[in-house]
Amino acid sequence: MLEVLDYIGLFAFAISGMLTAANRNLDILGGYIIAFITALGGGTIRDLLLNADVAWMTSLSQLLVVIAGATVGMIFRKKLRSWRRTLSIFDTVGISVFTILGVQKGLSLDALAITAVFLGMISATFGGLLRDVLCNEIPLIFKKEIYAIPCLLGGTFYFVGYYSGHGDTTWLLWSSMAFIIAFRTLAVLFSWKLPLIREFK
Amino acid sequence: MLEVLDYIGLFAFAISGMLTAANRNLDILGGYIIAFITALGGGTIRDLLLNADVAWMTSLSQLLVVIAGATVGMIFRKKLRSWRRTLSIFDTVGISVFTILGVQKGLSLDALAITAVFLGMISATFGGLLRDVLCNEIPLIFKKEIYAIPCLLGGTFYFVGYYSGHGDTTWLLWSSMAFIIAFRTLAVLFSWKLPLIREFK
Amino acid sequence: MLEVLDYIGLFAFAISGMLTAANRNLDILGGYIIAFITALGGGTIRDLLLNADVAWMTSLSQLLVVIAGATVGMIFRKKLRSWRRTLSIFDTVGISVFTILGVQKGLSLDALAITAVFLGMISATFGGLLRDVLCNEIPLIFKKEIYAIPCLLGGTFYFVGYYSGHGDTTWLLWSSMAFIIAFRTLAVLFSWKLPLIREFK
Repeated sequence: MLEVLDYIGLFAFAISGMLTAANRNLDILGGYIIAFITALGGGTIRDLLLNADVAWMTSLSQLLVVIAGATVGMIFRKKLRSWRRTLSIFDTVGISVFTILGVQKGLSLDALAITAVFLGMISATFGGLLRDVLCNEIPLIFKKEIYAIPCLLGGTFYFVGYYSGHGDTTWLLWSSMAFIIAFRTLAVLFSWKLPLIREFK
Repeated sequence: MLEVLDYIGLFAFAISGMLTAANRNLDILGGYIIAFITALGGGTIRDLLLNADVAWMTSLSQLLVVIAGATVGMIFRKKLRSWRRTLSIFDTVGISVFTILGVQKGLSLDALAITAVFLGMISATFGGLLRDVLCNEIPLIFKKEIYAIPCLLGGTFYFVGYYSGHGDTTWLLWSSMAFIIAFRTLAVLFSWKLPLIREFK
Repeated sequence: MLEVLDYIGLFAFAISGMLTAANRNLDILGGYIIAFITALGGGTIRDLLLNADVAWMTSLSQLLVVIAGATVGMIFRKKLRSWRRTLSIFDTVGISVFTILGVQKGLSLDALAITAVFLGMISATFGGLLRDVLCNEIPLIFKKEIYAIPCLLGGTFYFVGYYSGHGDTTWLLWSSMAFIIAFRTLAVLFSWKLPLIREFK
């Protein structure tokens, strides 16, 4: 089940990579490369930091899902623009799964609490960060949207739940994901933004 | 013999890094750093993804070849501009060797077929990608030239040959490299380009 | 003692990350992420290249020092601009410690001489390089300041001292750091610059 949600996230991220690449006028192969990096980049950085084997390297199904997402993004890119809201839902599901998977992987390798939460956020957001750097833009997560905050809070929620005796229960998993999805959805609906550094004090 | 070709590739990539750095008005050390990253970056990413030791870290000869290439690039940078076509030949030899070495390394570590081919392309092209990102440009391989396609096809050619019973024979190795070199040369001569994403359909 | 100096370096680098982020008009979380990457990025790349465990992943104290530095940077960012010179001193202490720690780590893992010196420079400067890439600027170390040269020379100094029979003595450590600090300070005071590539010959 978590696996299915992971695929939904990869699929949505691959579409978002392809659409960004189309906006920057890249060629088809460039679009696929950006789609791969958007979908798999966050998990790759997580695995490199953990000095663990990189997960997608041995997962044919993950690679095929990304190729499918990128292809759908290329073919339906005009229609997808009017489905923006639908896409954003998939994307939100994606970051919620990636966050929890990242925290879990950190926990399973005995990372510090704070490191595990960071790994969750990195899994969910650094693919998009690499996408933006490669497309020569200042990463979106630094500026315009509440993106990483739900990941940090949801990861903390999972972590606290885990160590307050709930263990790795299905219930904890779903409620953490629901927390991230709800928070992110409210942030989009009400255009929540973090204050800029220069607005501080 | 493959080692000599590897050095030719590193030498050509180091020159290309130094020339790009000169165009962006960097200082001498910046030129050397870009030369190193251009020449060794693709192989470094390949090794990190494979969770293997990074090859150049223990190879004095590779480091010296890169220093030599960068120095030649700096001293003869004006002449090299008129030798553009010659340079492009070295560069093409470089990507053909890097691709096959990448696929081989993937195979030797039991990667998936598709992953091994990707590793070949990454070895050959991601050094240039890092060069462009550091010089604040949208990577060339996403836009202007057929660069990565010969690597993907040549890597597949090698892979299929390998598993259709030819094993790691010299003959397979040379014919895969010849394939990449021929394809890339034709692409340059006839200005082949991939369609842009927005030209699709 | 070296640990305290390491913290001073992390603290100064975190401030510099936050100030750069403020200049680029990022939000608060973006500022913290840039601060982390500036302070810990160089050491992370060093550890990845060495195929070693990433140091900060298990160091709560390093993470807290970076958070403290970033917070100080955010709160006092206006005052810090007039303290530019003071900041530059911390920063210089930082690169001197990071360089020597990088060379030491290379030596302890039996790296080549040249690789160990490179690792020193990478530890000290690639955090700032990542900061600049993420803020969509051409890295500072390629252009405006003598930054990496003191690291390369100081790292070589340490290396030569180490193998000419001094071993890992306190005396060698301090004199290498003093060398880097003195060189870098003179470079700032007298506005030393490396020649551009196009000025060569």
